[in-house]
Amino acid sequence: MKKFVNDPNQYVAEMLTGIALANPDTLRYVPDYNLIMRTDAPNDNKVSIIQGSGSGHEPAHVMSVGKGMLDAACPGDVFSAPPMDYVLESSKMLASPKGVLHLINNYTGDRMAFDMGKEMAEAEGVRIETVLVDDDVAVSDSTYTVGRRGVAGNFFVMKVVGAAAEQGADIDELVRLGNKVNSVTRTMGMALTSCTPPAKGSPLFDLGDDEMEMGVGIHGEPGRRREKLHNANEIVDELLDAVVPDLPYEKGDNVALMINGLGGTPISELYLLYGHAHEQLEARGMHVQRNYVGEYCTSLDMAGASLTLVKLDDEIVKGLAAPAETAIRTF
Amino acid sequence: MKKFVNDPNQYVAEMLTGIALANPDTLRYVPDYNLIMRTDAPNDNKVSIIQGSGSGHEPAHVMSVGKGMLDAACPGDVFSAPPMDYVLESSKMLASPKGVLHLINNYTGDRMAFDMGKEMAEAEGVRIETVLVDDDVAVSDSTYTVGRRGVAGNFFVMKVVGAAAEQGADIDELVRLGNKVNSVTRTMGMALTSCTPPAKGSPLFDLGDDEMEMGVGIHGEPGRRREKLHNANEIVDELLDAVVPDLPYEKGDNVALMINGLGGTPISELYLLYGHAHEQLEARGMHVQRNYVGEYCTSLDMAGASLTLVKLDDEIVKGLAAPAETAIRTF
Repeated sequence: MKKFVNDPNQYVAEMLTGIALANPDTLRYVPDYNLIMRTDAPNDNKVSIIQGSGSGHEPAHVMSVGKGMLDAACPGDVFSAPPMDYVLESSKMLASPKGVLHLINNYTGDRMAFDMGKEMAEAEGVRIETVLVDDDVAVSDSTYTVGRRGVAGNFFVMKVVGAAAEQGADIDELVRLGNKVNSVTRTMGMALTSCTPPAKGSPLFDLGDDEMEMGVGIHGEPGRRREKLHNANEIVDELLDAVVPDLPYEKGDNVALMINGLGGTPISELYLLYGHAHEQLEARGMHVQRNYVGEYCTSLDMAGASLTLVKLDDEIVKGLAAPAETAIRTF
Repeated sequence: MKKFVNDPNQYVAEMLTGIALANPDTLRYVPDYNLIMRTDAPNDNKVSIIQGSGSGHEPAHVMSVGKGMLDAACPGDVFSAPPMDYVLESSKMLASPKGVLHLINNYTGDRMAFDMGKEMAEAEGVRIETVLVDDDVAVSDSTYTVGRRGVAGNFFVMKVVGAAAEQGADIDELVRLGNKVNSVTRTMGMALTSCTPPAKGSPLFDLGDDEMEMGVGIHGEPGRRREKLHNANEIVDELLDAVVPDLPYEKGDNVALMINGLGGTPISELYLLYGHAHEQLEARGMHVQRNYVGEYCTSLDMAGASLTLVKLDDEIVKGLAAPAETAIRTF
């Protein structure tokens, strides 16, 4: 296994330790619940926003905690939902008079943990609301989901809802905003290679030297089809042909375009993909008003990329343009 | 070849097109010279800073152009020095009454192109000074160098010199500052895998499934030794044992610590490495005052990492803490 790892069972804990050591003033690590939280949370004057999912998707979500984004993230182990007591205890620790917002990607395991954790925390007097992200157009009813999967588009939900929470928006307003952003966000990804979970020590699936998986999930779930490897422009065109008609995004729309790397793809290749995607969208009469090129939601060391579009309006642009400071960068 | 690529000969041009399309207000792309430059450069009131090197090390250096960093970068093809006319023409386009500073990593090809380009530009009346970066402790007199190689430590030189230039420092002051930062910066890297240059289409070197290359160069040059693969903490310890005694960094020193990914290593693993490196330095009595975890200077899709230390003083910290805005992030 060609990875930087000590004991695979300590992989997540050691990563979270590193994040906390690198951000001593702004982030706090609570090992019992894999919890990374803002040192200034909870704040009585704002809703607390918590994301939980499996690990292995970094920078989502433990590196998206910070001012203007998440108040906390409580991931499970690699590609595993957080246990419900992580959700319960995190929700209690982050409890604010204005409430706690759970942001969840649509996977059955995550939903179950968050539903149960929410119910238990509510029984202890914490007000909780939920926003579910399901932006992946590749398949419905995937290996680990009923309905569509939540993938890199969750960045936009976190960003807009996080900005509004920082401004003091109440929890009903955040639910409205989060659902609105999710409703205009669509993503599809594809893999050039598998990924290797540390505890498994070998690739999660096999992909031939001349093959790619179109519509792959961020846990290596099967996509729409396995194909012969195409060139970069053809791959972008296939992704656009899946994403654009789904909403649909139309001539005259202002959009945000994200090219997200899945972990093992260098940023040079991501910009190469971006260039063609940008040109194709403009050729279809859309205006790429904002862009995001880099790693936002990965699948360990998988080589591959996803393409996300968001239909913009003034309210969403305002949230995307607001300042945010996380462990890895200023957005 | 498992990469996003169209025509390998257009790889760099297509990447640069993507960068320019993603940053229409701040960056300008001049295809004739692979030039990415600030739209507001040259500025009569500041020294222009130009970096040139091979491509394939992104975000270095084409994604490090922006306010508070570089004024321009004119890379060659993948792992190839820029032709001297790129250096000449870029220097003329960026000419400022305050002069032009060339930042170069110490590789024979880059030095030759920059020496000749400088001489030709000077003949046309452009004032040019040079700062050379050679932070890699792994080997001296490597495959492509006389003396030590310049690697990820160049980030710190760019950042501090870029901040001072933005404040109006004159060119002699920038040369002094750049040389000073380089003199207290040391790096060593190691590879878990080779990388695949687009035009070659196959890995640059072979590395067994249970092997690693300790002290690897960013073009896949041989390092100090090939070893059996060790666990993450042992790898960090080996890097520290090479880097710390070289300056040396000593008890009581305030340092910046960078864990730089080489392109194919996920950020979760980089934070895992960071945690152990931070703890080890503190255990040796040093204080990690600033940290940098992510990709700064890569080797295409190579899995691996480098560790850089900088001995800090007030002047260097001031430069590192100053605002900077580049294509990929705000530092």
